[in-house]
Amino acid sequence: MVRIAVIGCGYWGPNPIRNFFKVPTCEIAAIADLDRARLDYLRRLYPALRTTSSAQQLFESQEIDAVVIATPVTTHYALAREALRRGKHVLVEKPITSRASEARELIRLADEQRRVLMVDHTFVFTGAVRKIRDMIDAGELGELYYYDSVRINLGIFQHDVNVLGDLAPHDFSIMRFLVDKQPAAVTAVGAAPVSWGGWKRESVAHVAIQFADGTLAHFHLNWLSPTKIRRTLIGGSRRMIVYDHLDPDNQVKIFDNGVSIRTDPERYKALVEYRTGDMFTPKVDQTEALELVCRHFVECVEQGTRPLTDGTVGLEVVELLEAAQESLETQQRVPLRLA
Amino acid sequence: MVRIAVIGCGYWGPNPIRNFFKVPTCEIAAIADLDRARLDYLRRLYPALRTTSSAQQLFESQEIDAVVIATPVTTHYALAREALRRGKHVLVEKPITSRASEARELIRLADEQRRVLMVDHTFVFTGAVRKIRDMIDAGELGELYYYDSVRINLGIFQHDVNVLGDLAPHDFSIMRFLVDKQPAAVTAVGAAPVSWGGWKRESVAHVAIQFADGTLAHFHLNWLSPTKIRRTLIGGSRRMIVYDHLDPDNQVKIFDNGVSIRTDPERYKALVEYRTGDMFTPKVDQTEALELVCRHFVECVEQGTRPLTDGTVGLEVVELLEAAQESLETQQRVPLRLA
Amino acid sequence: MVRIAVIGCGYWGPNPIRNFFKVPTCEIAAIADLDRARLDYLRRLYPALRTTSSAQQLFESQEIDAVVIATPVTTHYALAREALRRGKHVLVEKPITSRASEARELIRLADEQRRVLMVDHTFVFTGAVRKIRDMIDAGELGELYYYDSVRINLGIFQHDVNVLGDLAPHDFSIMRFLVDKQPAAVTAVGAAPVSWGGWKRESVAHVAIQFADGTLAHFHLNWLSPTKIRRTLIGGSRRMIVYDHLDPDNQVKIFDNGVSIRTDPERYKALVEYRTGDMFTPKVDQTEALELVCRHFVECVEQGTRPLTDGTVGLEVVELLEAAQESLETQQRVPLRLA
Amino acid sequence: MVRIAVIGCGYWGPNPIRNFFKVPTCEIAAIADLDRARLDYLRRLYPALRTTSSAQQLFESQEIDAVVIATPVTTHYALAREALRRGKHVLVEKPITSRASEARELIRLADEQRRVLMVDHTFVFTGAVRKIRDMIDAGELGELYYYDSVRINLGIFQHDVNVLGDLAPHDFSIMRFLVDKQPAAVTAVGAAPVSWGGWKRESVAHVAIQFADGTLAHFHLNWLSPTKIRRTLIGGSRRMIVYDHLDPDNQVKIFDNGVSIRTDPERYKALVEYRTGDMFTPKVDQTEALELVCRHFVECVEQGTRPLTDGTVGLEVVELLEAAQESLETQQRVPLRLA
Repeated sequence: MVRIAVIGCGYWGPNPIRNFFKVPTCEIAAIADLDRARLDYLRRLYPALRTTSSAQQLFESQEIDAVVIATPVTTHYALAREALRRGKHVLVEKPITSRASEARELIRLADEQRRVLMVDHTFVFTGAVRKIRDMIDAGELGELYYYDSVRINLGIFQHDVNVLGDLAPHDFSIMRFLVDKQPAAVTAVGAAPVSWGGWKRESVAHVAIQFADGTLAHFHLNWLSPTKIRRTLIGGSRRMIVYDHLDPDNQVKIFDNGVSIRTDPERYKALVEYRTGDMFTPKVDQTEALELVCRHFVECVEQGTRPLTDGTVGLEVVELLEAAQESLETQQRVPLRLA
Repeated sequence: MVRIAVIGCGYWGPNPIRNFFKVPTCEIAAIADLDRARLDYLRRLYPALRTTSSAQQLFESQEIDAVVIATPVTTHYALAREALRRGKHVLVEKPITSRASEARELIRLADEQRRVLMVDHTFVFTGAVRKIRDMIDAGELGELYYYDSVRINLGIFQHDVNVLGDLAPHDFSIMRFLVDKQPAAVTAVGAAPVSWGGWKRESVAHVAIQFADGTLAHFHLNWLSPTKIRRTLIGGSRRMIVYDHLDPDNQVKIFDNGVSIRTDPERYKALVEYRTGDMFTPKVDQTEALELVCRHFVECVEQGTRPLTDGTVGLEVVELLEAAQESLETQQRVPLRLA
Repeated sequence: MVRIAVIGCGYWGPNPIRNFFKVPTCEIAAIADLDRARLDYLRRLYPALRTTSSAQQLFESQEIDAVVIATPVTTHYALAREALRRGKHVLVEKPITSRASEARELIRLADEQRRVLMVDHTFVFTGAVRKIRDMIDAGELGELYYYDSVRINLGIFQHDVNVLGDLAPHDFSIMRFLVDKQPAAVTAVGAAPVSWGGWKRESVAHVAIQFADGTLAHFHLNWLSPTKIRRTLIGGSRRMIVYDHLDPDNQVKIFDNGVSIRTDPERYKALVEYRTGDMFTPKVDQTEALELVCRHFVECVEQGTRPLTDGTVGLEVVELLEAAQESLETQQRVPLRLA
Repeated sequence: MVRIAVIGCGYWGPNPIRNFFKVPTCEIAAIADLDRARLDYLRRLYPALRTTSSAQQLFESQEIDAVVIATPVTTHYALAREALRRGKHVLVEKPITSRASEARELIRLADEQRRVLMVDHTFVFTGAVRKIRDMIDAGELGELYYYDSVRINLGIFQHDVNVLGDLAPHDFSIMRFLVDKQPAAVTAVGAAPVSWGGWKRESVAHVAIQFADGTLAHFHLNWLSPTKIRRTLIGGSRRMIVYDHLDPDNQVKIFDNGVSIRTDPERYKALVEYRTGDMFTPKVDQTEALELVCRHFVECVEQGTRPLTDGTVGLEVVELLEAAQESLETQQRVPLRLA
């Protein structure tokens, strides 16, 4: 029985609580939050839960095997470090830390302490993304042509990050899971048409990631779009995929399309033609991804195995975020060499 | 009666011919093409047409008042220059020329000769784009937040241009018509996953145009997309627009949305919230845009007025294309100062 | 403080419980179900709730002012009758009873006892349906041309009703709320391609209701459709409405369309033409309809007013159901005269 | 070389002319219309065409092998009869005749004269309908559960027919091609909310066709719908089809769905459950259906073979139309026994 404490019970915290309840070999032993009212609210929902406003108390407790860190990003590092030092396994919300150097330190510490360090890259556990990964593994896409992601909506502004910090971790983690290529450079542009709290933070951003072989991935992130779009196109030499997260009946569409070179002597004629074939929409597992995250974490703790989304994966996402932010600020292409 | 000759009757040429037939105060007096078979084909369709393989002959003819140049881009400059020198009015297909310097020379010549020089930026004459322009003029959008254009499909590759040269002229001309701001820099990234004819030309490109005040326009161009998308988002402080060229029933959707700053003392809360209001889809004039182009050209010739899409507008589009191409090649942000 | 007991806590019961919690001037005083395990489950969710397996006990209790009856349809009559006799106000799930005669008896009893008798026709309280009603009241639709409803999906079969009994109460109650005309006859056809439990029950049905003035309403109900559709078209002489319950962003689309008679001497020509104008999608209140049902019920109890969906409205829906079922069985048009 | 004359060059006539031009083994030898201006118009398009205002002249001509009858429905019978009597092969627009008795006479005459009698049921020749027929032949749908067709739009009113006569021939011919069952009865309801020319003709109609084994086909026809829908659902025990004529990229969607009976002891539970599997959208041949109609007719004339849509098929459609019209008028279910 893995005994788990959840640190941070704000907007997101109740979600891991609810999902860990579904995993029979673990128990939520305690929750911590600085906000007493929030703890009261959760106690009404779950009368049996032990609550505290001291995370430190939980780190020191012998009754706790693992902690879930669901606090604001800037606090991830200090909390996870202390938890690992005290010998707890750690599941931390994305992004793993604010800075790459911090993530590296956590990875080192987890190795030293032989504890599980997992990042909650939830989307990697969705049925749609796993289905696409399976197709890539089976060679069905052929050679990768490009990766194009759009995540836009009229959103609630976050008070402590820009649109990049808010939305890009999702897409970078999905992309890192699906694309087996080494990112070589990041070019980002953005705009901050709306200011609030005296701050000008980007609410629109476009990030291009170029891989070593010239392949291009692109990410459109926007808090000011009148329509909500969550769509990724993946072009391959054999098949192309449209992954639309908001179309539950057709989340993954597979197009049996391709471009075939045609030698054509005629004047004014194209030298390459397109063909269009069948389209196929596989059934996609609709299990809540966060439940699978929770199960995977418990399993890794029980068996001492390395999680799919371990510290290194979390670090890569932070490195991409840092490079994108640097490109936004310097208005230059930022070369990179991931961990 | 404006007497018109059409130079170049390949893929596009029959379209202006067909549309000038609808304008009562002009006549198609002759057509020219180097391909005899093509001329034969057109004579079967329009038995009364005079045909020739010599454009020069038409430039020198006293029977011709104006010429339409619908030949490959690289020939636009030489043909338009000769036509203007011979005192003909000129309607040239987009883009006006391959290079900005050439466009400047044509503008100078047209002024000198007091002849009409018009570029066929067809989209500017569509009902949808004119409707959006009317809304902007009426102040309905408020302050511009961003401009975002997507033009992607599984396309016929062009043998002499990359995806930028093929698709961007459309979007740049629409954007220049709708956005009353000065472009300050261009950042472009692209990829050429497919090669043909021994050439590697970009078939995927993302172009960001930053305006002097920091506003961002972005263009996604792709010949390798499994789905065809022609969609422009225009975010404003009062209203937002989705212009979907492929949805004839709802080409222009107007969202009564906006972002309102909210001062909120609560912890964990966003400081800005969104509100969503009504959506409105105006009826859009479905007259073929090219017919309006032809009417406008004849009118300008008759009345000696300056066309909406004159040489200067054409030059700006070429300058943007040149800057985008330079950015693609140098992988750097290219500052610009338009004509 | 209105003290409420909920009788029947199966599939639907928890929904009114959850929503009555939102109404400050009432309290859920007790719940009853024959299934002990179900009561245990609900006590875990709401530890303070008094539970019992005896509805009769609650009817006799002086601590209860009103009851919600959320049991299988066949038991509605006996339970509601007993509750009214004991002086309780009653909110009963749709349809009010299995038979029209039973509904008439309940109406009589509620009048005699001066108690509120309300049917939970939830859809009548949705923002979309109320918006449409407002438009009709404002005369915006003009004269009603037709009413057409489609409610189809690949559904869970109900073990005790056919597709008519399962789905039509929703649509009949919406239609009765929106259409101010007297139904004159019902014609229904159906099919039972799938049998289960030794029974052949219709899983596909089409019901046409003709009004006294010839206007037609039609209902397509289907448990065997590969796609889920919840769409109502309402044609009017001035405007037409498409109400799509599954398109949350555009639940109500209003088309400024109409048919205009054109006198045309030309041979082979139509004598009537169509015109298409603007389309408008108003923002629709997304408050959970059941919350409004609960608030309305409590208000009627407090103020002694007649509910919007009272016993008479419930009776009309049952009369339409009975007539449709009779038409299904006799394969004949069934004339009717509603209450 | 089959020499063809086209009788009737109104709205539809130019379409067969244009398509017969694509068939190399035939020629359009002449066209006839009572309207001189219409003939002048067509002569400008096709200068080589022989024109006449006398159909009789063409029937008597030795230069003509076959005639296409594209005149108003009420004239089909007399013209086709005369053509057959004169030994011409006949392709007649749908529906074959106004009355079933007339169709029977044409069938008799064609047999006697050993001439081809074909009805232009264009939709039967579309790629989508042929693809569905192939799937049915391969047993992929399993047992037919139901057939449901919707053909609605804001349409041009026809001056001489109601919505049934205008739209139902399309759907009845598609249904007869796809469903291998014997229609047993027709139940139709309709409404005529708009009147014109002093006439009240139905502009909304619902037609149910019951087959001998109880299977149900339903047709929704509407000239007053604000949205255009052309969709047919075909439910089978193994697979279900959504055929949407207006979605060119996904005209035929095949759902690997089905209903499976589940024995379930639990109270309140359904006894049948649904499962949802993969969806597949095959590429559909987009050749213009009318071209295939023309090729098939010429082939049948050349080889003396019986067309796919022969007189008997045309007769069945007319019998269904007559029964539906009778049901509309009598407000009763009309039993039928097709030819």
